[in-house]
Amino acid sequence: MPFSMNTIKRFFQITLIIILNSYVNGQNSAGRVPDYPVPYVLPSVESIMEKIDKIVSYYENSSTQQILNRETGAVIRDFTQPNKYAVVSEGLSSEWTYTHGVVLSAFDYISELTGDDSYFSHNIKFYDFVRKHLPYFRRNNEEYGRSACGWRRIMYMDALDHCGSIGAALVRTFKKHNNPEYRELIDIVDKHVSNIQFRLDDGTLARERPQPVSVWADDMYMSVPFLSQMGDLTKDEKYWNDAVNQVLQMSKRLFIGGKDLFDHGWNENSADYDPRFYWGRANGWTVMAMADLLTVLPHDFQGRDEILHIYKSLIRSVTELQDGTGFWHNMLDKSDTYLETSCTAMFTYGIAKGINEGWISHVYGPVAQTGWNAVATRILENGAVDGTCEATTFAHDNVYYFNRGKSYDATHGYGPVLFAAAEMIRLLNNTHIRIDKAKPNSINSTYHYKYE
Amino acid sequence: MPFSMNTIKRFFQITLIIILNSYVNGQNSAGRVPDYPVPYVLPSVESIMEKIDKIVSYYENSSTQQILNRETGAVIRDFTQPNKYAVVSEGLSSEWTYTHGVVLSAFDYISELTGDDSYFSHNIKFYDFVRKHLPYFRRNNEEYGRSACGWRRIMYMDALDHCGSIGAALVRTFKKHNNPEYRELIDIVDKHVSNIQFRLDDGTLARERPQPVSVWADDMYMSVPFLSQMGDLTKDEKYWNDAVNQVLQMSKRLFIGGKDLFDHGWNENSADYDPRFYWGRANGWTVMAMADLLTVLPHDFQGRDEILHIYKSLIRSVTELQDGTGFWHNMLDKSDTYLETSCTAMFTYGIAKGINEGWISHVYGPVAQTGWNAVATRILENGAVDGTCEATTFAHDNVYYFNRGKSYDATHGYGPVLFAAAEMIRLLNNTHIRIDKAKPNSINSTYHYKYE
Amino acid sequence: MPFSMNTIKRFFQITLIIILNSYVNGQNSAGRVPDYPVPYVLPSVESIMEKIDKIVSYYENSSTQQILNRETGAVIRDFTQPNKYAVVSEGLSSEWTYTHGVVLSAFDYISELTGDDSYFSHNIKFYDFVRKHLPYFRRNNEEYGRSACGWRRIMYMDALDHCGSIGAALVRTFKKHNNPEYRELIDIVDKHVSNIQFRLDDGTLARERPQPVSVWADDMYMSVPFLSQMGDLTKDEKYWNDAVNQVLQMSKRLFIGGKDLFDHGWNENSADYDPRFYWGRANGWTVMAMADLLTVLPHDFQGRDEILHIYKSLIRSVTELQDGTGFWHNMLDKSDTYLETSCTAMFTYGIAKGINEGWISHVYGPVAQTGWNAVATRILENGAVDGTCEATTFAHDNVYYFNRGKSYDATHGYGPVLFAAAEMIRLLNNTHIRIDKAKPNSINSTYHYKYE
Repeated sequence: MPFSMNTIKRFFQITLIIILNSYVNGQNSAGRVPDYPVPYVLPSVESIMEKIDKIVSYYENSSTQQILNRETGAVIRDFTQPNKYAVVSEGLSSEWTYTHGVVLSAFDYISELTGDDSYFSHNIKFYDFVRKHLPYFRRNNEEYGRSACGWRRIMYMDALDHCGSIGAALVRTFKKHNNPEYRELIDIVDKHVSNIQFRLDDGTLARERPQPVSVWADDMYMSVPFLSQMGDLTKDEKYWNDAVNQVLQMSKRLFIGGKDLFDHGWNENSADYDPRFYWGRANGWTVMAMADLLTVLPHDFQGRDEILHIYKSLIRSVTELQDGTGFWHNMLDKSDTYLETSCTAMFTYGIAKGINEGWISHVYGPVAQTGWNAVATRILENGAVDGTCEATTFAHDNVYYFNRGKSYDATHGYGPVLFAAAEMIRLLNNTHIRIDKAKPNSINSTYHYKYE
Repeated sequence: MPFSMNTIKRFFQITLIIILNSYVNGQNSAGRVPDYPVPYVLPSVESIMEKIDKIVSYYENSSTQQILNRETGAVIRDFTQPNKYAVVSEGLSSEWTYTHGVVLSAFDYISELTGDDSYFSHNIKFYDFVRKHLPYFRRNNEEYGRSACGWRRIMYMDALDHCGSIGAALVRTFKKHNNPEYRELIDIVDKHVSNIQFRLDDGTLARERPQPVSVWADDMYMSVPFLSQMGDLTKDEKYWNDAVNQVLQMSKRLFIGGKDLFDHGWNENSADYDPRFYWGRANGWTVMAMADLLTVLPHDFQGRDEILHIYKSLIRSVTELQDGTGFWHNMLDKSDTYLETSCTAMFTYGIAKGINEGWISHVYGPVAQTGWNAVATRILENGAVDGTCEATTFAHDNVYYFNRGKSYDATHGYGPVLFAAAEMIRLLNNTHIRIDKAKPNSINSTYHYKYE
Repeated sequence: MPFSMNTIKRFFQITLIIILNSYVNGQNSAGRVPDYPVPYVLPSVESIMEKIDKIVSYYENSSTQQILNRETGAVIRDFTQPNKYAVVSEGLSSEWTYTHGVVLSAFDYISELTGDDSYFSHNIKFYDFVRKHLPYFRRNNEEYGRSACGWRRIMYMDALDHCGSIGAALVRTFKKHNNPEYRELIDIVDKHVSNIQFRLDDGTLARERPQPVSVWADDMYMSVPFLSQMGDLTKDEKYWNDAVNQVLQMSKRLFIGGKDLFDHGWNENSADYDPRFYWGRANGWTVMAMADLLTVLPHDFQGRDEILHIYKSLIRSVTELQDGTGFWHNMLDKSDTYLETSCTAMFTYGIAKGINEGWISHVYGPVAQTGWNAVATRILENGAVDGTCEATTFAHDNVYYFNRGKSYDATHGYGPVLFAAAEMIRLLNNTHIRIDKAKPNSINSTYHYKYE
């Protein structure tokens, strides 16, 4: 039976009014069970392992790890002759990028924690792939110039983004797989980080963009993990001294007291009046960088306590800003920005890690737990990690930050999610932690993490 | 005449776009009258009295105040023989609970303000009901154990929740109705609060949950009103000294400068880095506790000025966080948490009380007025108070706090709403306060409260 | 083909769920381009000039600038006889109001920047219109009293709202169009501002409403621009001294450290515990007032550095609070209040002006740019400026501020939008500023403003 336009219109209006009212009034009937947007549960180790394996499979299958002729698409197998059209096959797992560095460091960590070497084997596979074909691309580059240069960030290394993170993973790999050709690559990275990269007068690593002198919070991760690993590898204290200085001197400019968050960046030419943007991932990078450093730094090392203070203050602050879903917002202090995957994974990792290492109190357990539950909803059936904010420059207006796209193509989510997963497994297996439900038989009860 | 799917779809889309745009763009046509979500009016004393009577009626009728056989449902009238199955009839007005304590204190206050003793008569009825049957339940308990124990919080008193609030109401009642058996009950409560309850080394009342040493903001209400009344009853200064110390020492740990709000709780094992959760009702408890103490404390009592400073700072802070509806949010500093009844009533009471007592400036009048108007929308036709956050433990993750259920079955709203109503009547009748409308003939004008 | 009610209902529900989910989950598919709510573009000088001319045309045509008989509606041309019913024709461009003052100052500024005198010609037209008919209305007023008094704010001048802003524009006009009758009007304004208006003991301009002693942030604009112009006109330093004192002493009470925003007002009777309301337009007035003063004040004038510090701190703070659309919210720190036109225009002006004058860093360029883009969407096809918060008193409850109406009839938007437009043109033409897109060929890239 047909309906008149008016009937449909009226029906439509009434339904909408009911829905909008429920948002505005917030009233509801008696005895209502909370309607958690993300299940409020204790995840199992098995469910997390399953997520890890899905992601690893998706990630590794993203590239064939071959050398191709970009004109014909054919696989190149003869590397004795230079070839103008040679390129590395596309895909996440073939790239010499900082995001791939995070993933490779995570593979190393997962193997360490689980005892299963299959994750780490991808590291050797990747670095061998690079090492083997680098002479060939060097020759192509000499012959035909930049356009014929695979992994051009190695040959045209001119930013911390090109070397710090992928270099840190390389040192981790080298520590377990002592190949002298790896060491050559390490030295190239070390030269850039320690000697070439632009620095302020006080030694702080900096950039000449977007303004003539700018400090980026992201650069804490693009340098400190590498310096941490180098200190551990060489036992030369200069690396740890540099790493500690980077954290403290960047914090001096970027860690905003009271807010206890990192500003995305600082410009010399706006100095004390530089506007602050508390972008989620920038804060995530600092958590991960400090965690890497605190892991290797001797307990009595000068500056360690100051770093620990920053770490604890930052964790407290982000805990207070966590959304009711368990996620964090793309701009941490703005609840009208979207819920972002990569920073949520980074904070989940940083909190679980902090508890496991004893840097922060175990009372933070439910924050990591709910962070993980949120992240888990972003791991798609095929293993892709969705909802990550795309590459973001250091900008000066909220409009830019509010409106960054997000997708499973943004590679920044993969490594952090793997780290979060690994650290959550460690937390669930931590024999010093007992996890109680406040009301054991209630589906509507919080979790308390207790020390024993 | 039928419509094609496309026509309906298109109509549907356009309407939605218009509605969503109106939210996003915030544009609107000329001369628009504000569309207040809650009427922006001056309530009348009569309308408030009417609400009080509705609530009292609903509340008192919630229980028959009888002793029942829980197996058969029959009313027990013979108390000479022990009975394994004896229980107190269900319902709000039969319970020995802290939320019933707030209601009974409110009944006392309403009778004081209105001169109508009928409210206070419920107090005598309840405490007599308890007093008369307590020996019977004690005997049942001796004979058959805990499960046969009505009002087991009296016999198994092991938390401030079991005694402070209901004890404060008992002292108020005893002051007007001098029954020696009441005094015996008072002594049981006093013993727990003053001697048994777990305390920190500095005397601060504390709990051994959820962590081994935790301080809860709620405990300010679970102790200070009782201690305030005991000081007034006995004229022994030890009670007021203890009460003042509780407020100041809890504040030292929980009242966060800058935010000027109370953190829900503090754990010794996370100490300076304990995360802060500004839960509405916890702050409401502190307002009500301080108001009770300030009411009885002599003006020159040591520590009074410090408490007044905390009171005024807290009132200013919550005023700045009031929602555009007049409500407060379940987490005070998070506008994406729901609008909550009990804390709104508590702040409405605290502000109106503060003006009436001269603790805060009369300029705060419209805050109490709009708070009351909001609360009034939650009093259902049958007298039930809707929209109150259910019982909430001291948790460590926003996800828990964001998602607490709310309903008219949450008993925490009843007492605060009655107190708010009573204090609003007193404010409207306050001869020192003149309430002006900025533009007398405009439906769209603010109210100014002036002193004369 | 007809649909059953259930089919339609189901379709309806599913669509709504999809839409609401997209808000809640914030997930989306790969490679998504940001969906800017306001285009993220670099506006052209031409497009801005076009908007200016539309607004000027709408504004000037709003009144016939005639004297009418309010009973008959007839135009009065004989001014030799008093007339009880004489009134000024209605419309924005006939009014002796502070909002018209802002528009006339903007006309002066646009003519200065563009070299096109047609804008400024409206100033002479208006002040001549007033000057010519003022004796006539004075006589009517003597004869028939207040109701027969056109421009009664001149004859019954008893508030800064009645004289400061329209007086500042008058001085600007007089500086280029030296008419002795203008000077007489200037002296009337000067007398009120300098000698008659209520002040605190320390000389701060204040009001006796809403409380007996109140300081309003708005009054910075209602006095400082006039005093700035008077200092420039007379070279008598007393005006600039008074102007500097107003800024510093109002700031002492209203500029809240940490927040770095102006509280709308302050009452002596609530003093240190006065609640703070960060209303957008009040902050906009202070930006515009300080800009006017800094423009004329010699660089070494006492107090200038302090004012510059306030200016820079305020600009940084509002930058951090800008919405993702480019607008600001009606209450700056409350993202659930609506997006407001007049304050957005004021901040856009203040930021562009600050860069052009070298008071603040050029890194703020994108904030002004996105602010302008937002404002531009509120200029209707006919030249009306929509979305401006209506006249707002200094209130003491969020409910009032949240729910102010907004419309194109609120006259407060016109002057600020014209100022913002003019200053944006100056910024785009600023030869020291180079505007780069971070990724030149991407539609999804931020803008960097560089100094050269």
